[in-house]
Amino acid sequence: MTRPAPSTGPQLIAYADRLGGSIPALTALLRGPLAGVFDGVHILPFYTPFDGADAGFDPVDHTAVDPRLGTWSDVADLATSHTVMADMIVNHVSVDSAAFQDVLARGDRSPAAGMFLTFGSVYPDGADEAELARIYRPRPGLPFTPMTLGDTRHLVWTTFTPQQIDLDVRSTAGREYLDQVLTALTSAGVGMIRLDAVGYGVKTPGTSSFMTPETFAFIDELTAAARAQGAQVLVEIHSHYQRQIAIAERVDLVYDFALPPLVLHTLYTGDTAALRHWLDVRPSNAITVLDTHDGIGVVDVGPDQIEPHAPGLLTAAQVDALVESIHEHSGGQSREATGWAASNVDVYQVNCTFYDALDRDDARHVAARAIQLFTPGIPQVYYVGLLAGVNDMDLLARTGVGRDINRHRFDAEEVEAAWGSWATRTVLELLRLRRSHPAFGGRFRVEGEGAELILAWENGDATARLVLDAGSGVGRVEVSADGDGPARTLVLTPES
Amino acid sequence: MTRPAPSTGPQLIAYADRLGGSIPALTALLRGPLAGVFDGVHILPFYTPFDGADAGFDPVDHTAVDPRLGTWSDVADLATSHTVMADMIVNHVSVDSAAFQDVLARGDRSPAAGMFLTFGSVYPDGADEAELARIYRPRPGLPFTPMTLGDTRHLVWTTFTPQQIDLDVRSTAGREYLDQVLTALTSAGVGMIRLDAVGYGVKTPGTSSFMTPETFAFIDELTAAARAQGAQVLVEIHSHYQRQIAIAERVDLVYDFALPPLVLHTLYTGDTAALRHWLDVRPSNAITVLDTHDGIGVVDVGPDQIEPHAPGLLTAAQVDALVESIHEHSGGQSREATGWAASNVDVYQVNCTFYDALDRDDARHVAARAIQLFTPGIPQVYYVGLLAGVNDMDLLARTGVGRDINRHRFDAEEVEAAWGSWATRTVLELLRLRRSHPAFGGRFRVEGEGAELILAWENGDATARLVLDAGSGVGRVEVSADGDGPARTLVLTPES
Repeated sequence: MTRPAPSTGPQLIAYADRLGGSIPALTALLRGPLAGVFDGVHILPFYTPFDGADAGFDPVDHTAVDPRLGTWSDVADLATSHTVMADMIVNHVSVDSAAFQDVLARGDRSPAAGMFLTFGSVYPDGADEAELARIYRPRPGLPFTPMTLGDTRHLVWTTFTPQQIDLDVRSTAGREYLDQVLTALTSAGVGMIRLDAVGYGVKTPGTSSFMTPETFAFIDELTAAARAQGAQVLVEIHSHYQRQIAIAERVDLVYDFALPPLVLHTLYTGDTAALRHWLDVRPSNAITVLDTHDGIGVVDVGPDQIEPHAPGLLTAAQVDALVESIHEHSGGQSREATGWAASNVDVYQVNCTFYDALDRDDARHVAARAIQLFTPGIPQVYYVGLLAGVNDMDLLARTGVGRDINRHRFDAEEVEAAWGSWATRTVLELLRLRRSHPAFGGRFRVEGEGAELILAWENGDATARLVLDAGSGVGRVEVSADGDGPARTLVLTPES
Repeated sequence: MTRPAPSTGPQLIAYADRLGGSIPALTALLRGPLAGVFDGVHILPFYTPFDGADAGFDPVDHTAVDPRLGTWSDVADLATSHTVMADMIVNHVSVDSAAFQDVLARGDRSPAAGMFLTFGSVYPDGADEAELARIYRPRPGLPFTPMTLGDTRHLVWTTFTPQQIDLDVRSTAGREYLDQVLTALTSAGVGMIRLDAVGYGVKTPGTSSFMTPETFAFIDELTAAARAQGAQVLVEIHSHYQRQIAIAERVDLVYDFALPPLVLHTLYTGDTAALRHWLDVRPSNAITVLDTHDGIGVVDVGPDQIEPHAPGLLTAAQVDALVESIHEHSGGQSREATGWAASNVDVYQVNCTFYDALDRDDARHVAARAIQLFTPGIPQVYYVGLLAGVNDMDLLARTGVGRDINRHRFDAEEVEAAWGSWATRTVLELLRLRRSHPAFGGRFRVEGEGAELILAWENGDATARLVLDAGSGVGRVEVSADGDGPARTLVLTPES
């Protein structure tokens, strides 16, 4: 199948079941009320089942679309109008997958035995405390779950939860599995492949087993395979900012996970220094985000977790103050959803809608989105943020999963109501501007001093500037005339 | 200090902060509305702080009474009228304890360094998969948490949560710590010491590190020390029933944790065979319970978790059916509080009030309590069960801790209202009978056939019989005349 190269315009990121209700319904939204806003869409895991123990990130069958959401034809149809990004979960499969269930039943006699990692596959002669303490994991405990496979007790490698069984990506069976998944995705027109949790994908004794040279080699192989099938690769890694810069040089696309905490820090304190520094050094082959289906990652701006002497974009004290500020601005709701309190897989992420993190203040909410849209890269907007959604305390209470605070299920009425709100209307206008104004194809500069932050684009005569007072959160966008419209100023504060 | 030997009469088990509000207030309840009902009371952890990460089971200072609950003098005062049982948390202390905080700061240079266990203290030369897979732990994962102590990464031994740091009970510092705790308790008149989680207390390479010969030796030492100070010892272990029987032969007192699931199984199915079998073989130096501050333990009646070929009191299929039945009877509430769903430390326990597990059916609720009170041993009644409390879904939602479903905070009005209910009045009457009728000092027999279960006590002329139709849950108690009252029959069904 041939198709145009993936677009670099704005993308939506959403669960098909939580926005629209299915892949065709999500397609209808993108072609209806959202026409002209987004060039692409990241559909969060829609494989079988989409509602497992980790909201689709624990597939039982990664090569099948969950029939409750649609079919591969629905994905292919969407891909005719929008660049489709989809997750490739390379590190693990569900404990309920047919392959692992066979290993549970038959142990070493299962043909799938080699497909999964155990402690002994990496450390055949055992390991001592120093060796095991070296393994990187942004959560408590070691990544092993004792299980009986056939008749023998084993320590199965489970980086995330005991329901997510790590693949041995070096084994023949593991490779074949990944090939099948990749082919299923690209055959349906998926143009961007997000490598979920790939930093943990390769385990190498004597190392942290996180983003080692062996991991890079693995990413290189996956990237080559994806490119051969016409797709780009996005690497998902939460890590120290310097490691992110190094990784960006070696892959197609990375996330800019430093941006969300820096935007909050800037709007909370009025201090633009850390954000300016980041805008100066950050890689531009990045997907920018404010909110995602996961929490707000503070590990990305703090001192290095692996080599603790390397400073971060923020000091440890600033990170602590940032986390406290999110809790304060959200009226304590994020505290209930974060850390030990809410069985989180990652205690370094704060769970909160971005709108609540900004006190439900429409001006700051829009200012934050404007910073994202004026930052180089492909802007990706999470559906809850787009609709200025608030913390879903009911869902959090029902599931006890911290991240569900920011994973509201919108019904059609709620979606309809959001289109009428000033905050969402203004963000949609900014997205249209970002998508179509020629200035964004040119050169980017950061200007202003102190609390006045100016993000400026220039492309011949075409200019677009975001002028923001970080202290008050008051901002405006000034754009030159272009083929679509006259020169104008867009004030980023609601009419009172 | 001298005091009478601990009583073998009924005991209450409660948190001072959740019933009464303080140790003096709990004392006032026991001497007021509950006078003549209980001979003893297990006050759940009242150390500093009583409200840590594990509801008091993670003491920062185990030798201090939390000042919000009272003083050691309040404990000593209660001990003048009631046998006081208190927890001795022998396996771990809070990560926030002064000693561990010093180890975090200074590593090996801390004088407390030897007090805590790491991977390397047990496996100095490392360990392989088979060795580590041997460690027994009724929850997922290995019992290690990577932490930086001083400047060095270590794997700290954390059997329960990363906030509970395991002691090296073989070290001089560990021994001195336990001595201080024991002395603090017995000095305040505590007559029964509950050894919390003692089965995990001793780690021995090459073994499961659970109830090994080395663990028994440790329990023997603790028991000798407690007896020398006038106290008995209760050993808390959830395990296969045959292991429980073996343990009971070697210690003062064990829990009868098999009784609660067997009572539910009996009342759900009308099948009395498993309960009869247990009543035939169980140890009588047991504290009987239906509900406790923890969940309903199904590991105690199932096939052996350590040697999977040893059958349980119930088959695996019966255990599964039992768990499903609890979920059904509680209208699904227990499912929200159990297993992976609710960040439980123990996925083998079902969290639900006993009243909800019996469908809030007053007759079955009272029948269950009657079975407990007619079973040999020291009956211990949990405060939520005594007051026929229902699942606290609000508290569960607020904390995300599964066991909080059964840890309601009763205010004075709720307590007052409970005394007026038929269920609580009848249970109090049964408790008074159990405490004072001479028949219970004699011989115990199980009679009846099929669904008709008769538990009979006889002591000379004094007799007491529980006659129960397990199918319908309808029962009655027949007692002979004694010094306190005439012969009579107590019907265990509410007047309609």
